[in-house]
Amino acid sequence: METQVENDELIIGGRTFRSRLFLGTGKFSDLDVQSRAVEVSGAEVLTFAVRRLNLDRPDEPNFLERLDLQRFTLLPNTAGASDAEEAVRIARLAKASGLCDMIKVEVVGNPKTLLPDPVETLKATEVLVKEGFIVLPYISDDPILAKRLEEVGAAAVMPGAAPIGTGLGILNPYHLSYIVEEAKVPVIVDAGIGSPADVALAMELGADGILLNTAVSGAKDPVLMAEAMRLAVEAGRKGYLAGRVAKKRYASASSPVEGMVGR
Amino acid sequence: METQVENDELIIGGRTFRSRLFLGTGKFSDLDVQSRAVEVSGAEVLTFAVRRLNLDRPDEPNFLERLDLQRFTLLPNTAGASDAEEAVRIARLAKASGLCDMIKVEVVGNPKTLLPDPVETLKATEVLVKEGFIVLPYISDDPILAKRLEEVGAAAVMPGAAPIGTGLGILNPYHLSYIVEEAKVPVIVDAGIGSPADVALAMELGADGILLNTAVSGAKDPVLMAEAMRLAVEAGRKGYLAGRVAKKRYASASSPVEGMVGR
Amino acid sequence: METQVENDELIIGGRTFRSRLFLGTGKFSDLDVQSRAVEVSGAEVLTFAVRRLNLDRPDEPNFLERLDLQRFTLLPNTAGASDAEEAVRIARLAKASGLCDMIKVEVVGNPKTLLPDPVETLKATEVLVKEGFIVLPYISDDPILAKRLEEVGAAAVMPGAAPIGTGLGILNPYHLSYIVEEAKVPVIVDAGIGSPADVALAMELGADGILLNTAVSGAKDPVLMAEAMRLAVEAGRKGYLAGRVAKKRYASASSPVEGMVGR
Amino acid sequence: METQVENDELIIGGRTFRSRLFLGTGKFSDLDVQSRAVEVSGAEVLTFAVRRLNLDRPDEPNFLERLDLQRFTLLPNTAGASDAEEAVRIARLAKASGLCDMIKVEVVGNPKTLLPDPVETLKATEVLVKEGFIVLPYISDDPILAKRLEEVGAAAVMPGAAPIGTGLGILNPYHLSYIVEEAKVPVIVDAGIGSPADVALAMELGADGILLNTAVSGAKDPVLMAEAMRLAVEAGRKGYLAGRVAKKRYASASSPVEGMVGR
Repeated sequence: METQVENDELIIGGRTFRSRLFLGTGKFSDLDVQSRAVEVSGAEVLTFAVRRLNLDRPDEPNFLERLDLQRFTLLPNTAGASDAEEAVRIARLAKASGLCDMIKVEVVGNPKTLLPDPVETLKATEVLVKEGFIVLPYISDDPILAKRLEEVGAAAVMPGAAPIGTGLGILNPYHLSYIVEEAKVPVIVDAGIGSPADVALAMELGADGILLNTAVSGAKDPVLMAEAMRLAVEAGRKGYLAGRVAKKRYASASSPVEGMVGR
Repeated sequence: METQVENDELIIGGRTFRSRLFLGTGKFSDLDVQSRAVEVSGAEVLTFAVRRLNLDRPDEPNFLERLDLQRFTLLPNTAGASDAEEAVRIARLAKASGLCDMIKVEVVGNPKTLLPDPVETLKATEVLVKEGFIVLPYISDDPILAKRLEEVGAAAVMPGAAPIGTGLGILNPYHLSYIVEEAKVPVIVDAGIGSPADVALAMELGADGILLNTAVSGAKDPVLMAEAMRLAVEAGRKGYLAGRVAKKRYASASSPVEGMVGR
Repeated sequence: METQVENDELIIGGRTFRSRLFLGTGKFSDLDVQSRAVEVSGAEVLTFAVRRLNLDRPDEPNFLERLDLQRFTLLPNTAGASDAEEAVRIARLAKASGLCDMIKVEVVGNPKTLLPDPVETLKATEVLVKEGFIVLPYISDDPILAKRLEEVGAAAVMPGAAPIGTGLGILNPYHLSYIVEEAKVPVIVDAGIGSPADVALAMELGADGILLNTAVSGAKDPVLMAEAMRLAVEAGRKGYLAGRVAKKRYASASSPVEGMVGR
Repeated sequence: METQVENDELIIGGRTFRSRLFLGTGKFSDLDVQSRAVEVSGAEVLTFAVRRLNLDRPDEPNFLERLDLQRFTLLPNTAGASDAEEAVRIARLAKASGLCDMIKVEVVGNPKTLLPDPVETLKATEVLVKEGFIVLPYISDDPILAKRLEEVGAAAVMPGAAPIGTGLGILNPYHLSYIVEEAKVPVIVDAGIGSPADVALAMELGADGILLNTAVSGAKDPVLMAEAMRLAVEAGRKGYLAGRVAKKRYASASSPVEGMVGR
């Protein structure tokens, strides 16, 4: 029995993607490394903080300038916002600048962990959905909050694996899988990923996609890591679709020897 | 800084491999699924129990008959042996049959866990190395035993991730990485792998290769899983070479917002 | 250097406790086992669902009837509530019955995981604090939500280790320790504990107390387990105060042999 | 149903102990702290390196001099040995000095991890058992080696939780529990423990006892930690005997609300 994976597409807010890897554009050592990492990652969605765009200084060099933006879907985020109001304002600014009607809502609740504020995130999402945005809220891994966001119209939910930039991997696989089980919108794991194994695990738990930034930009060789991550997303996705063996406490021989010669 | 990975080859006992995935041939539902799984896995080394070969009944159908054996390196194993003497006898039988001078020494010490016997494995390895075999012993994850085996001439060591066929994944990443740190011969993780994430993690810990059987043959879709595993080996290997970010307890913003407009 | 632990008291809402173990009274096989488990646990705070009290049928037998209620602080909970309004109503009912002005707010957001609804829990807490209740909200392990609850006047926060009754233990030690680091009110770990080791770990992470129910009532021998849990709370608390050794990747001899005879 | 734990004794080599905590005497900051830690730990068995005894300089101050040795069973170890021959020699030296006929065989195979050499440990054990010693070999967590040692007459087996002095805790709970399941002699977990939670977990997995050193001597407050560890051994032991609840993926209410008023 084989699974059909020919048309394994990810659809968010009416847009269709072949790649399940979203890439953040921040923190690369230089724009050349950034553009090559983007290239080999196969990412179709790029994220960035609206506030880094220097929207009021259009003639200054821009961190996105090396990228052929026609090829990518831009997913601006509201990083820097510490409440719903600020997030809404940043989102409107992005839209007014002609960037995109997709927005990643990011409302930080603590400067040390950068963990998101659940209540303000829900508020901002409600407002922006009503204004017609395609909203992807970044959240902690609270399964009930994920459901509430879906109910107010989020186009996807983006639970963190661990705090932003920590590289700790998936701190709570249970919560992530509870979110996946209940979700009717795509689940994109965002933040805290450290390595390809983390990515594969997230996909095997049923995540629909992964957003990475530090894990790529902070690797010793970001371009090679971008390629590793692309492969890991595919490996994890196919592993999920292929249906892994159950875990067992005791062994079973893969080279069974019953009825063999020479015994 | 980018790592050169063009010639990232695995060399064992003088043989050079491009693929780092070894595949067991047992327990597939049928030979067609087996041969297609082998194909998409990209494996160049295939393992099987000598005792399953029915060497005394050459005209009966054979589980290897669908495979173009010129394209693969065969790695017979001594499954079924419960002491060194028996393992040595099986290895000699394999050689006499013209199979191969590579042998995976497998001496099981307990029928419930199928965990290997360290002392008998060491004994068999010593004998077979002296007889000119290229010996790859299957062991538990004991770092000191791994070193002793290398010292007596093992061409590689094959620590288990977990008991055979359990799919539990890497039970002790510390032991695996201690083995890798000290090893001067290749380390092939063998047994207990459940999913692509396990494979990627093993490779990121510095393993040189992976031997799989149940994780592929026991998946709902073995062919798709074989492909997932091939991708996972590559993802983990590239992740290892690319140098992952350090883990940190606290966050660091991937979308830094200092000096931004609008604050 | 020794820590003074003579007066290691837990203070919540102005009440002082010597024991850091709160015990739920539900699901015991019979009232005799319940009362003996309560006894050996050393618990000073007992929890129960207001709705189980049959407040309208005062002459029926009552699950609390075997307990000398003068010796305990009763902590009624709002189990059964699925939104803030309902939780508030149950809390008022409890107060009107003369039960207590302490209330554990429990607003379930999903019938399968019984995980709490963050938004409704925050709402109910705000309302009840204003009405003069001593409010202990049961939450998931979201560090930001824990802080928000403290800010609106919660007397303690009660993050779950794992979903109620699962016995999975502390799914996310990071989140629990982030909560502890930021909290100015006591942190009582509630739900999901399975064994004494889980209890000790929670206390070592800095929790101020533990609420148990299923882990005791569902053990084969609930009375013996109640004793084990009492010891585990003390072990973990003392371990926390004593300051554990740092984790290291490599060994250091506890029997150093430098300058020894016979070498 | 209640378990009888009145006579829960540990018997090793014909000796009976009430306490299941063995304490190492090395690395304490001073002898006063050492003796008080020993006192509150409740330990009846004390371990130390034979080589630290300065057996040839009997008038020099001795690290055991503060202890009333009549009250304790001394368990000298062969730390410093790097092969079987050396371990045997040290054991004989201990016996000749009238110390004890119990010996902990410790043969280190690597200076960085201090992990034990399985083959030399087995050899030394065989020799010493034949010479009439009560032998407790320190091993890694290899289940088959544990069985082989029992078969040659070890009075107990002492698998490490993690490398000596690392405080990493139980790296492989599966291996530890496989050892316990098969063992007919007591299993004493030795080395690598960091905190009371680790101790409780080891006991819950069915270990018969725990040997600690660094986790106590290296704590900020060693005396308080010694007490915490005593409590943790009891908590874990009682938790094991009481029979913990099964782990479940989904919740079950501890405050069931069916048939309640007010719904």
